[in-house]
Amino acid sequence: MVQSLQAKESIGATNGDGFGLGWYGKREEPGLYREVRPAWSDENLKHLCRHIRLPLFFAHVRAGTGTPTTRPNCHPFIHSNWMFMHNGQVGDWSLIRRRVEALIPDEFYTSRIGTTDSEAVFLAILGAGADAYPIAATVRTLTTLTELVSTSGTTEPLRFTAALSDGRDLYAFRYAYGGSANTLYYRCGRRHHGAMAEQHTSVCRHRQFPNP
Amino acid sequence: MVQSLQAKESIGATNGDGFGLGWYGKREEPGLYREVRPAWSDENLKHLCRHIRLPLFFAHVRAGTGTPTTRPNCHPFIHSNWMFMHNGQVGDWSLIRRRVEALIPDEFYTSRIGTTDSEAVFLAILGAGADAYPIAATVRTLTTLTELVSTSGTTEPLRFTAALSDGRDLYAFRYAYGGSANTLYYRCGRRHHGAMAEQHTSVCRHRQFPNP
Amino acid sequence: MVQSLQAKESIGATNGDGFGLGWYGKREEPGLYREVRPAWSDENLKHLCRHIRLPLFFAHVRAGTGTPTTRPNCHPFIHSNWMFMHNGQVGDWSLIRRRVEALIPDEFYTSRIGTTDSEAVFLAILGAGADAYPIAATVRTLTTLTELVSTSGTTEPLRFTAALSDGRDLYAFRYAYGGSANTLYYRCGRRHHGAMAEQHTSVCRHRQFPNP
Amino acid sequence: MVQSLQAKESIGATNGDGFGLGWYGKREEPGLYREVRPAWSDENLKHLCRHIRLPLFFAHVRAGTGTPTTRPNCHPFIHSNWMFMHNGQVGDWSLIRRRVEALIPDEFYTSRIGTTDSEAVFLAILGAGADAYPIAATVRTLTTLTELVSTSGTTEPLRFTAALSDGRDLYAFRYAYGGSANTLYYRCGRRHHGAMAEQHTSVCRHRQFPNP
Repeated sequence: MVQSLQAKESIGATNGDGFGLGWYGKREEPGLYREVRPAWSDENLKHLCRHIRLPLFFAHVRAGTGTPTTRPNCHPFIHSNWMFMHNGQVGDWSLIRRRVEALIPDEFYTSRIGTTDSEAVFLAILGAGADAYPIAATVRTLTTLTELVSTSGTTEPLRFTAALSDGRDLYAFRYAYGGSANTLYYRCGRRHHGAMAEQHTSVCRHRQFPNP
Repeated sequence: MVQSLQAKESIGATNGDGFGLGWYGKREEPGLYREVRPAWSDENLKHLCRHIRLPLFFAHVRAGTGTPTTRPNCHPFIHSNWMFMHNGQVGDWSLIRRRVEALIPDEFYTSRIGTTDSEAVFLAILGAGADAYPIAATVRTLTTLTELVSTSGTTEPLRFTAALSDGRDLYAFRYAYGGSANTLYYRCGRRHHGAMAEQHTSVCRHRQFPNP
Repeated sequence: MVQSLQAKESIGATNGDGFGLGWYGKREEPGLYREVRPAWSDENLKHLCRHIRLPLFFAHVRAGTGTPTTRPNCHPFIHSNWMFMHNGQVGDWSLIRRRVEALIPDEFYTSRIGTTDSEAVFLAILGAGADAYPIAATVRTLTTLTELVSTSGTTEPLRFTAALSDGRDLYAFRYAYGGSANTLYYRCGRRHHGAMAEQHTSVCRHRQFPNP
Repeated sequence: MVQSLQAKESIGATNGDGFGLGWYGKREEPGLYREVRPAWSDENLKHLCRHIRLPLFFAHVRAGTGTPTTRPNCHPFIHSNWMFMHNGQVGDWSLIRRRVEALIPDEFYTSRIGTTDSEAVFLAILGAGADAYPIAATVRTLTTLTELVSTSGTTEPLRFTAALSDGRDLYAFRYAYGGSANTLYYRCGRRHHGAMAEQHTSVCRHRQFPNP
């Protein structure tokens, strides 16, 4: 996940519906830079990439699936010390949007500043207890989403290839229902170790800092 | 309401959180131009104002009250042949947002592409039957909003100075609960006639085309 | 040239460095809408295309060749009643920029609000007398540009596929030095008639309104 | 000059024609973030300000004087290790633009990516030998500008309140011809020492790092 943004930018040639860059610096809360222009023509991004040297960051280029191209709809999404980005889709979003939004507890609903499925799923995962049990909260949310999609009468799949971090650990998920999951690449560096989990769900956990 | 945009632009000096322009041309559905930059520095707007000559348009400069500055959050809002813009606030939005969004029927919820209180109120009015009874639907929605605000535990007012049109008639509303309403200016031209209504609510109805 | 913008938009998938739309309405000066976002994600453009029905317009999607992605660098360019758009390149622009800018008379230099080669060539053509003799002014400018490119020590070609209009006639040019010219498609409608000219230069002249 | 951006942002309420932020980090070349939206509504800026902690940065909110609101027209401007921002005007720019641009040597002219007077003056100062003698190069350029303005037939003043840095020293200038100069505030911190110079010109030189 500590990959080069340049690679992302080359993908960007067809993912021109905005992009985002999130990173952990010296604060608990991650930094965030999101823009509706394509990544390849953004001079600001070039400067930020040259000047920000950090062990953990998320970079995302967006190919929208129906929701407008606005900054709040661009990944990654952040909330307190949590950061999330998602590549995929949640069935036919128009059929289950209200029920997914209903999964978000009130305390997190004020953080819903955009209208995407991805942001709603992120806040639902936080609401399901990510602070204490990030993997269990994500798996539980995916279980609920699978039910919602499967009973919504759509043939569109649930695809969930995602990265989640609290600034210390990095969790990567790859799951699908009704279709195949998007690919997920990761590299385990010196200070990382991975862990696999769950039947349908690939969970990769990277700890950013050496364990005792 | 068929006023000069130039006046609006001068107001723009302190309303720099985006703006919008909606108009009725030869189609049923209104045209819409919204932008996150301030109105005064937008060359495109200057051209559109010079080139669009129409009997009915809405112009709005936004001073945001918490929701992000995105195009979908800029007024006016449109849905099929309806257009709406709003100057005011709906109590403490964070306290009643979910309940206001719950007023929007499913068939209109897919049109919720932003996150503002104003767009939610517009879709709630449409859901309350604006197609058949625009004034009654608006008054009913304002009644519900007043209840929601008054029981939400806030001291912030409900201010609703708004314009609504179906492309044929223009309705202007001015209402407040817990505070004074924002001003509303209108001019009745040759082809317009007004109508007042309701106790707390000022309703001004302009018919765009001559009656038989 | 009275072609569908939709076709242009499909090309847009790889031309994401801004776009522009210019049109002649009831005024002498054309209308202009330019934006740095990709055409395919711009809701405003969709509305304008639905609402503007005019006999003559220019649509352009930009793939930048070095100059920044700003609105003033997007085509088409306008000056009084003239409109111009260009697909191509002017040799190694960094080598001859000053000399091309020197071709622009003072009275047109204040209209240089961007930094592209295309805008400079447009203003040079106007300065060469386009008002009286548009074809001759363009050919003379191309002759000078060919000299400048050929003596500048570059191997990069001069490619000039362009459209020029005064709101009444439409001129289309296709010329190259040191390489092949980009393609130019045009359709002659009922009210148009074409004319070919020049050795190296293809000139197509369309008259918008029927001749006596 | 190492002041809080928050103060700048409050000024921003009336300076809504874009803004910029430049800073020196671990590289020689400064970082740069410029945006055409007003500073106060830019979520990205809030994140950058929270996450960038550096001894020397420039922040600028723009109130345009005729040139378009584009990112390349926003201050600060950078070239290799140099950074510059300017508050003022250069007479009637349309009368002397070409002559000021002619002051820029070819090697710096490719860095002219915008169309403002300020960027042209910056590149002219670099061309006058800022690398070796930054104060002398600036004074010489101001002398030439004064001649150009005074002989151009305008009554508009030359106002030059500016900051210039090579990443090590910070130079602040305040000069006017035909009017009064804009104010300049600066604070000398522990590691700074100032120096005054010149008759008409106030030059303040801050050395960022302790001298031996």
